[in-house]
Amino acid sequence: MTQTLNETHNSDLRSWLDSANTPGADFPVQNLPFGVFRRQGSAEPFRVGVAIGDQILDLAACCDQGLLTGAAAEAGRESSLNTLMGLGAAEWSALRQAISRLLRSDSAQQQQAEATLVPMSDAEMGMPAAIGDYTDFYCSIFHATNVGSMFRPDNPLMPNYKHIPIGYHGRSSSIVVSDTPVRRPHGQTKADDAEAPTFGPCKLFDYELEVGFFVGAGNDQGTAFSVDQADDNIFGFCLVNDWSARDIQKWEYQPLGPFLAKSFSTSVSPWVVTTEALAPYRIPAFERPEGDPQPLPHLDSERNRSHGGVDLDLEVFIRTPQMRQQGLEPHRLSRANFRDMYWTAAQMLAHHGSNGCNLRPGDLLASGTVSGQDKSARGCLLELTWRGSEPIDLPTGEVRRFLQDGDEVILRGACEKEGTARVGFGECRGTILPA
Amino acid sequence: MTQTLNETHNSDLRSWLDSANTPGADFPVQNLPFGVFRRQGSAEPFRVGVAIGDQILDLAACCDQGLLTGAAAEAGRESSLNTLMGLGAAEWSALRQAISRLLRSDSAQQQQAEATLVPMSDAEMGMPAAIGDYTDFYCSIFHATNVGSMFRPDNPLMPNYKHIPIGYHGRSSSIVVSDTPVRRPHGQTKADDAEAPTFGPCKLFDYELEVGFFVGAGNDQGTAFSVDQADDNIFGFCLVNDWSARDIQKWEYQPLGPFLAKSFSTSVSPWVVTTEALAPYRIPAFERPEGDPQPLPHLDSERNRSHGGVDLDLEVFIRTPQMRQQGLEPHRLSRANFRDMYWTAAQMLAHHGSNGCNLRPGDLLASGTVSGQDKSARGCLLELTWRGSEPIDLPTGEVRRFLQDGDEVILRGACEKEGTARVGFGECRGTILPA
Repeated sequence: MTQTLNETHNSDLRSWLDSANTPGADFPVQNLPFGVFRRQGSAEPFRVGVAIGDQILDLAACCDQGLLTGAAAEAGRESSLNTLMGLGAAEWSALRQAISRLLRSDSAQQQQAEATLVPMSDAEMGMPAAIGDYTDFYCSIFHATNVGSMFRPDNPLMPNYKHIPIGYHGRSSSIVVSDTPVRRPHGQTKADDAEAPTFGPCKLFDYELEVGFFVGAGNDQGTAFSVDQADDNIFGFCLVNDWSARDIQKWEYQPLGPFLAKSFSTSVSPWVVTTEALAPYRIPAFERPEGDPQPLPHLDSERNRSHGGVDLDLEVFIRTPQMRQQGLEPHRLSRANFRDMYWTAAQMLAHHGSNGCNLRPGDLLASGTVSGQDKSARGCLLELTWRGSEPIDLPTGEVRRFLQDGDEVILRGACEKEGTARVGFGECRGTILPA
Repeated sequence: MTQTLNETHNSDLRSWLDSANTPGADFPVQNLPFGVFRRQGSAEPFRVGVAIGDQILDLAACCDQGLLTGAAAEAGRESSLNTLMGLGAAEWSALRQAISRLLRSDSAQQQQAEATLVPMSDAEMGMPAAIGDYTDFYCSIFHATNVGSMFRPDNPLMPNYKHIPIGYHGRSSSIVVSDTPVRRPHGQTKADDAEAPTFGPCKLFDYELEVGFFVGAGNDQGTAFSVDQADDNIFGFCLVNDWSARDIQKWEYQPLGPFLAKSFSTSVSPWVVTTEALAPYRIPAFERPEGDPQPLPHLDSERNRSHGGVDLDLEVFIRTPQMRQQGLEPHRLSRANFRDMYWTAAQMLAHHGSNGCNLRPGDLLASGTVSGQDKSARGCLLELTWRGSEPIDLPTGEVRRFLQDGDEVILRGACEKEGTARVGFGECRGTILPA
């Protein structure tokens, strides 16, 4: 259902709001991502908004004005998207249609809707959801092969990799919304030639470019999803920066996986692009090289094969303090595409629920680092600099092996193709504070 | 502070409630654990109660009657202990003292307090806390060595083990309170001699005997606890059964750790025994064998060395359907003691926060399987039957390598010593439903 094209996707649609019609704008009327906001510096409660051009449509105000009605619109009064997420795809779709009609150039209610807009420049964005559980996957085979070959040269890709969307539980308490500064963690590390470990600030501070997705209505404990049910259970997508302390990770991760190397902070972009908005960009799942096993039946479907992928272009930028001083634009470090993931989002979610584990509205799943085959498509510094051995030259003459205090990392994502409206994700930003 | 003995610990204290004074009772007036309950079959909201003998003191009713006052008592009106947990040790202690005085044989308010009691037999217990994040450790060196030698014969104990309380993020959504049936999970497994994995019901279903503890006020993101601060931040303890699907675990766990092998269900006992109630049972931390490294300074303190341990006796019982039919009592499988853990609870919590990861009131940490040195003290079937190769004989003539459908597993725990009142944990039970 979430993949069907409808009137909201029509590329001819324009909004009465000029900034939504600018070529290259992330938030035209075909996108309509949901977020949580309030006026900067105010004591207002956070509430749900929809991004349109450079403005935010205030759902609570729309309800007050009678512009929107029903349970889904009323869920906009809450301080997180969880209730809306729990209502399911039919409700999401109906609300999206109503909002689309309100914002299109032929809207009969332009004036009233205009009165509810809050400029993004005046808004403070909140966490889009109260995340009960956060799960991080590892679904780029290019990333897994690169990292595996550094940590386990003799055994880069485990035998399970092509059979299971490998993932692990992450930390939900420390997930922050974009623009929240991120403090360099302390931790225990051990140099290869040292006899004993020491405790101190992380020296190998890294980012990871990931795509996240939020669970909709979810499943009851003891029940499972089919892959198609899982796909219908994804409310929407965002950008995720899975900050990583590589030196802490190396020392701690065996045998139970990454823990403190990741749990100090994870950043998410504030706007959740709905699964429905991405319908024009659904593509076949990753084509497995000949000889690779096909997924087991519970991770497979015709629909997943033909439409499981998303053609989502992703970029990572850095801005150092020196670049800021010199007024330079952020420097692009890499560019990848979500289509290159070995497993689809629906497969990750179906796998997660396959043992009867209950997923709840607002739970966040993330894809793992999105890396492509090319060197330019590597989604973290560990891979890009090959563990620091191939430093990156910046326009200022600086070099980076890993991140320094004051560096800002910016993730961007967008779907774009000829004849279809651009669907942008906005940005996920974070600046590193000293330990 | 939480380790200081005060009037509430006096072993001479008796309650006006006879069942609290019975020798061997889990809940004398020196214990006073907190839980969440409502009358069975009622539509009442869950609310906070305190176990006394075979009764539950209803905190909300006590507030209504003016028997208890203040923020901590008022937090008893809520459907979880989270608010109470967030108030901190001084508030917990004051409330404990007030409840103790109310329930002692010299109470001036016996009659009014008696009117608020609800018999445990009439009560339905709820989850004690809304658990934001759940973290599971691996802190029995005996368990880690046993399991490690099965999964990695050449490398049973990783080099980090004696330096770091090894842990990983668990799944919070699927934690259930004692007496909730647990469904056998499906999952992907691969036999050693099979070419490809298959998907089906778990065949190697196991329990794990663990001790859990709940975070109190917690810490802000980017800050850390000292070990002593961590100790003061533990509200209380419970029993945890970390159900485990060993065949799923074996196939999935590398390189990111256990995931679906554990996330289908985790059971906790309903009564949270406060850290203060355990003060008489605090003992020195585990004595590391000569040659083992000492903990780094951020995981060390004088107080932790002298009082970091808890002398808590733990037992696991099984009751099969056939045992139930024959009216047999549960059969004890093993007996261990929490004092044998390589790391203390305070060290686990201090480690968790050492990278700036924020812990929130109600977060649950669990110790990992509590196993001792002796074979009789092994805390899971994987160890007890040495992966099924040494089956266990039951009184019915049945044997068990792993758990069968209909089997009930019962964990019990208690602190007891001469001259000090027994502090019991009650039970953590779960019966296995077919896949």
